[in-house]
Amino acid sequence: MAANRAYLDYNASAPLTDSARAAMIDALTVAANPSSVHTEGRAAKRMLEEARADVAALVNGRAEHVVFTSGATEAATMLLTPDWTMGRAPLRFSRLYVSAADHPCILKGGRFAADHVSQIAVTVDGLVDLDDLAARLAMHDRAAGLPLVAMHLVNNETGVIQPAAEIGRIAKQAGAVTVFDAVQAAGRIPLDISDGYADYLILSSHKMGGPKGAGAVVSAADLMMPAPLVTGGGQEKGHRAGTENLPAMAGFGAAAREALANLDRMPQIAAARDRIEDLVRTHVHDVAVHGAGAPRVANTSFFSIPGMKAETVQIAFDLAGVALSAGSACSSGRVGPSHVLQAMGFGGQASAVRVSIGHGSKAAEIDLFMAALAGIAKRRKSNAEAA
Amino acid sequence: MAANRAYLDYNASAPLTDSARAAMIDALTVAANPSSVHTEGRAAKRMLEEARADVAALVNGRAEHVVFTSGATEAATMLLTPDWTMGRAPLRFSRLYVSAADHPCILKGGRFAADHVSQIAVTVDGLVDLDDLAARLAMHDRAAGLPLVAMHLVNNETGVIQPAAEIGRIAKQAGAVTVFDAVQAAGRIPLDISDGYADYLILSSHKMGGPKGAGAVVSAADLMMPAPLVTGGGQEKGHRAGTENLPAMAGFGAAAREALANLDRMPQIAAARDRIEDLVRTHVHDVAVHGAGAPRVANTSFFSIPGMKAETVQIAFDLAGVALSAGSACSSGRVGPSHVLQAMGFGGQASAVRVSIGHGSKAAEIDLFMAALAGIAKRRKSNAEAA
Repeated sequence: MAANRAYLDYNASAPLTDSARAAMIDALTVAANPSSVHTEGRAAKRMLEEARADVAALVNGRAEHVVFTSGATEAATMLLTPDWTMGRAPLRFSRLYVSAADHPCILKGGRFAADHVSQIAVTVDGLVDLDDLAARLAMHDRAAGLPLVAMHLVNNETGVIQPAAEIGRIAKQAGAVTVFDAVQAAGRIPLDISDGYADYLILSSHKMGGPKGAGAVVSAADLMMPAPLVTGGGQEKGHRAGTENLPAMAGFGAAAREALANLDRMPQIAAARDRIEDLVRTHVHDVAVHGAGAPRVANTSFFSIPGMKAETVQIAFDLAGVALSAGSACSSGRVGPSHVLQAMGFGGQASAVRVSIGHGSKAAEIDLFMAALAGIAKRRKSNAEAA
Repeated sequence: MAANRAYLDYNASAPLTDSARAAMIDALTVAANPSSVHTEGRAAKRMLEEARADVAALVNGRAEHVVFTSGATEAATMLLTPDWTMGRAPLRFSRLYVSAADHPCILKGGRFAADHVSQIAVTVDGLVDLDDLAARLAMHDRAAGLPLVAMHLVNNETGVIQPAAEIGRIAKQAGAVTVFDAVQAAGRIPLDISDGYADYLILSSHKMGGPKGAGAVVSAADLMMPAPLVTGGGQEKGHRAGTENLPAMAGFGAAAREALANLDRMPQIAAARDRIEDLVRTHVHDVAVHGAGAPRVANTSFFSIPGMKAETVQIAFDLAGVALSAGSACSSGRVGPSHVLQAMGFGGQASAVRVSIGHGSKAAEIDLFMAALAGIAKRRKSNAEAA
């Protein structure tokens, strides 16, 4: 990071932590394939299994219930399928229930046909509408198959924390299986898969300070599993074929260990985020901070400056040295209206910018943000007076 | 690598080259998501596109025809599907033709139902039986859909080089689309996708000295593409969703560049391999070297010691400090009969050990191999005399 730049886009991708970097560089010296049976292969497998235990520990799960993937998107596509097995018996899910504010990797329904995906409404604060969820599940046609409920635990744009226990309770009462996308939750709020609301959790390494290219499905039990997505080898107990990506998983494991240890630093992250929001409210008195009425993770702020498109604001910040985002970074170069804000009832053209910070954020970066914001607010005021 | 160990298992996974390691470590400092539009994101995207150009150059392809994946197995599962599009029109493949000696990621047929996959015979030398291919394709029911032919260019166990031009010619005459698994070919023989035999090539980074967790589909044109496997974001022009794994792709690009530059070193690799085979023939006069009657890549030797199970030989070498394999390292801890040898007509229990070397192989490793081999041959002789 250049000294004159501030990186405030952790929800898109967080910088690698020192421990994750060290674990990766160590694992890069391992030539062997972790599935090889010789001494070198077995040593590689042991490193992989240590990483698996670290990832399991982050969500109080069991290592044998972790399936490593190339990332959260692959994990979601793997889990969101009508075709599952329970032991050796086939199990059929006939309908997928997602929230309208989910990340595209959930929202698009994975391997479900589009007309077998139902979107659950969200409130103006960005919370899943529990009444809508219960009503939709009550109408589920069980003769066709089981209901699968898949939702984010923490919204990637707003940082809003969903009422997971209630979602899980409603889903379980309807006989549904639950998948929670914990990508933006892991390392920011405590997660415990033994709590019972989640049958499956989706994790991403690079959102918590681990490397890109690593993710996981963690299951509460190993009774039911989805039809494998990537096939052709027996790796990951048959759930995910392909040579295990040891360096990435070693980095993921280290990041998970560090994220778990650093959960108690969230109050400091929240204080920095609150300072950022105070600055925004000071310079832009009519700002709208989205999801502020709901529980939020410590690191995220999503706000609109009335009269300015998010794209314009994002570019102005970038020119002033501040990297932040306008929506999610999922499509090459796309910046547009936010489907999350649309789901929250703000209209199809609503947009906002997102500040997201984390383990490596420095006070100097917030100072740079403040200077950039002051400039943007000043120009906005001049433009308004000229109009 | 400990000084008293020899790593002769490059076909399972090759050590990272120095340039790939340097490129990865450099890319690990990049926090940004390559799909982010801010300065940091655009810089990350440029690094990704440089890697894409390097991978394209290895097969004389075009960068815009490279889709990055998490590895060759994912690339194969992506390509081996009945559902394709040509432009926006759907295109249906009704049958997949593979060789009986393919790697499991091809052999298992990806997203084709098992009864829509036909296995083409191979000769005793491990070459695809061209008459069988032509005969099977002649019987293809075009009313049901198009034929898709997917085969390895170089066998992972024997190192045998397939007659790609002839396979391509026969397939094209039958109106088939061709996919070649070039995982064990890339960096060992020249590859040129403009030659016309291959519509799609599958590449793996970690078999050529790049990092694990990186692979690619390279297409000869962008007219037809398979239904995406991993979905939910617009990355890779919509062909593969998920945050781009920049460090892995940067390492892959560096390895591809190095592999291309080092193709002229293959005679030295071949000389080392030939020395290994001479040693084997000296100590085991009745050894069977599989595929030796066919063209082979420079780095691979696959041989059976009569009267000894490959598993036993592999363990004996490992105890003597030599890592080599008995079959492919695709299923955790599995060592058993070779389906490749079975396809070549050696019976269902046939097994062999594979020596595979490469860019980092040292003379001292071959010396260690020789000492281990001498010990194994001596014990075999004693056992035979005692029996």
